[in-house]
Amino acid sequence: MTDRRVLLAVTMGEPAGIGGELTLQAWAARHVNGPAFLAIDNSERLRILATSLGYDIPIKTITSAADAGEVFPTALPVLEVPMAATATLGKPSPATAAAVIEAIEVGVRLAVDGEVDGIVTNPIQKHVLYAVGFTHPGHTEFLADLSRSANPPVMMLASSQIDPCLRVVPVTIHVGLRRALDLLTPGLIAEQLRLTHAALISDFAISNPRIAVAGLNPHAGESGSMGNEETDIIAPVVAELRAEGINVTGPLPPDTLFAEQRRSSYDAAICMYHDQALIPIKTLDFSGGVNITLGLPIVRTSPDHGTALEIAGAGKADPTSFLAALDVAAELASNRAVD
Amino acid sequence: MTDRRVLLAVTMGEPAGIGGELTLQAWAARHVNGPAFLAIDNSERLRILATSLGYDIPIKTITSAADAGEVFPTALPVLEVPMAATATLGKPSPATAAAVIEAIEVGVRLAVDGEVDGIVTNPIQKHVLYAVGFTHPGHTEFLADLSRSANPPVMMLASSQIDPCLRVVPVTIHVGLRRALDLLTPGLIAEQLRLTHAALISDFAISNPRIAVAGLNPHAGESGSMGNEETDIIAPVVAELRAEGINVTGPLPPDTLFAEQRRSSYDAAICMYHDQALIPIKTLDFSGGVNITLGLPIVRTSPDHGTALEIAGAGKADPTSFLAALDVAAELASNRAVD
Repeated sequence: MTDRRVLLAVTMGEPAGIGGELTLQAWAARHVNGPAFLAIDNSERLRILATSLGYDIPIKTITSAADAGEVFPTALPVLEVPMAATATLGKPSPATAAAVIEAIEVGVRLAVDGEVDGIVTNPIQKHVLYAVGFTHPGHTEFLADLSRSANPPVMMLASSQIDPCLRVVPVTIHVGLRRALDLLTPGLIAEQLRLTHAALISDFAISNPRIAVAGLNPHAGESGSMGNEETDIIAPVVAELRAEGINVTGPLPPDTLFAEQRRSSYDAAICMYHDQALIPIKTLDFSGGVNITLGLPIVRTSPDHGTALEIAGAGKADPTSFLAALDVAAELASNRAVD
Repeated sequence: MTDRRVLLAVTMGEPAGIGGELTLQAWAARHVNGPAFLAIDNSERLRILATSLGYDIPIKTITSAADAGEVFPTALPVLEVPMAATATLGKPSPATAAAVIEAIEVGVRLAVDGEVDGIVTNPIQKHVLYAVGFTHPGHTEFLADLSRSANPPVMMLASSQIDPCLRVVPVTIHVGLRRALDLLTPGLIAEQLRLTHAALISDFAISNPRIAVAGLNPHAGESGSMGNEETDIIAPVVAELRAEGINVTGPLPPDTLFAEQRRSSYDAAICMYHDQALIPIKTLDFSGGVNITLGLPIVRTSPDHGTALEIAGAGKADPTSFLAALDVAAELASNRAVD
């Protein structure tokens, strides 16, 4: 990052979904005072979308990211992605899949090259991408591969709408609960915990991060009377990382860990499975959570929702999470720049 | 229940814990305007405790529950339980275990006989009871046995501090998560759901209760791509009970089910495991939740915490949950009386 204002790149995402209208709404909401961004998208489809929604948003094609900062206050800067077909709102098609993938590739390249300070990705419909040969388990793994990340990506969900703020890291994610239990190993937990610790320092500017680790079982197993994963798997990792000087506590009873009275005692909570992390954050902040990928060489955030095909183009998309994703990406990028 | 004011019985619970001070605080907080209750306890130990805490609370021994209503506005009525030894705060002992058990037995008898309208139980330390031959897995199972319940007890946690209010029923409770997965069967879910439905009508006076059923896996399994318990176990139960005319929906994605926007769509949520139910309620209301046992012939509630041995007698016990347990028991008893 240079000494210019933070500049982010926003990828197109699935053009049949709500991504386009989120990008348009975000420019309207942030062009005066927010972080600058360019859209890696198709200007024609954005213009048609803006017109159909009645949004008065100037759109300007740019050919270099370097021009985005100057354009941003008066028009949405778009780095063009050619589309082989017009997207039909609500109906994802393999005909536009190549454009979806290209937007992501361009975004990562710009971030790796330092032409932008981070990327915010609009949601994709991965099953459509599989139809054209996409081979990654998901969006995040594709980004890790493209950015030649030395680390596996770590998913953090954060909400600044919650006070004290809540940051959660599920060590297992999109797998059934039975499979999640089988995947829990000391190695996995230690790896995610170390990457979270490093990111809290570099990206969140927290010099000595406090990390809480949730147990897996009710009451964190109550000394082994309700499951032994705490004593066999989790506690040894906590002891090992404490010995390395990391300020980590646990395993802690999951049910009380996310209450207001407890949240101020840690900067991030390491959770054992998807819903242990997602239930508290979505219960407290249904629409404002941000998905942050830790462990990558680039800054990447995304809104904490999907393509919402059923309301695409209807002007009903709630931009709260997308706007938060932009703001968080800008904050992380600024912190990395100082680092 | 007769046409007199609601009368509840409060059991002693573990005398080394915070139960005694909760009972005293509850009388102070409710003797003017709250539901009347009698303590099934030891008046000497309560007097000593009140004095040591500096509480100016008159205590009066009664020999019949029928006298409690008249005494209650001016003194805490106590039905005497003899104790073989003086309890040491913070140190549970088998020497007082017989008194703990007797208080529960007396409470259930009074409720079964209609001399009180419900019981609120102070927390026990079950390992101490095991030392004197107590054979039940826990407090609740003991109550079911004593009251000759035709049904297995169902645990509901409810908070009226949360708006819209939240009532959750975990179908598996104090077992490790791996074991909980093994215990999940259509029969268990159907049984708990039917008992919850009946209790919402009889005890909560909701004529056509709306019940939401959580999935087990992330996103409720996403059509089987992340676990098949939804399609194999949960969905068939929901279909069966809908066919019986019960207003039940699910399996629903667990992470969004407890958000404010969703809570108004159901009267109770059936949850698949302890923390799926406990995380949302404790995240939203750390200290005001009430544990309600459904399916018993008697009304029974308890505070949603343990004996808190480490602060017993220190005057630090928070009575919020205990007071809520009293108020909820009174409400349920009134509804049953009308029924």
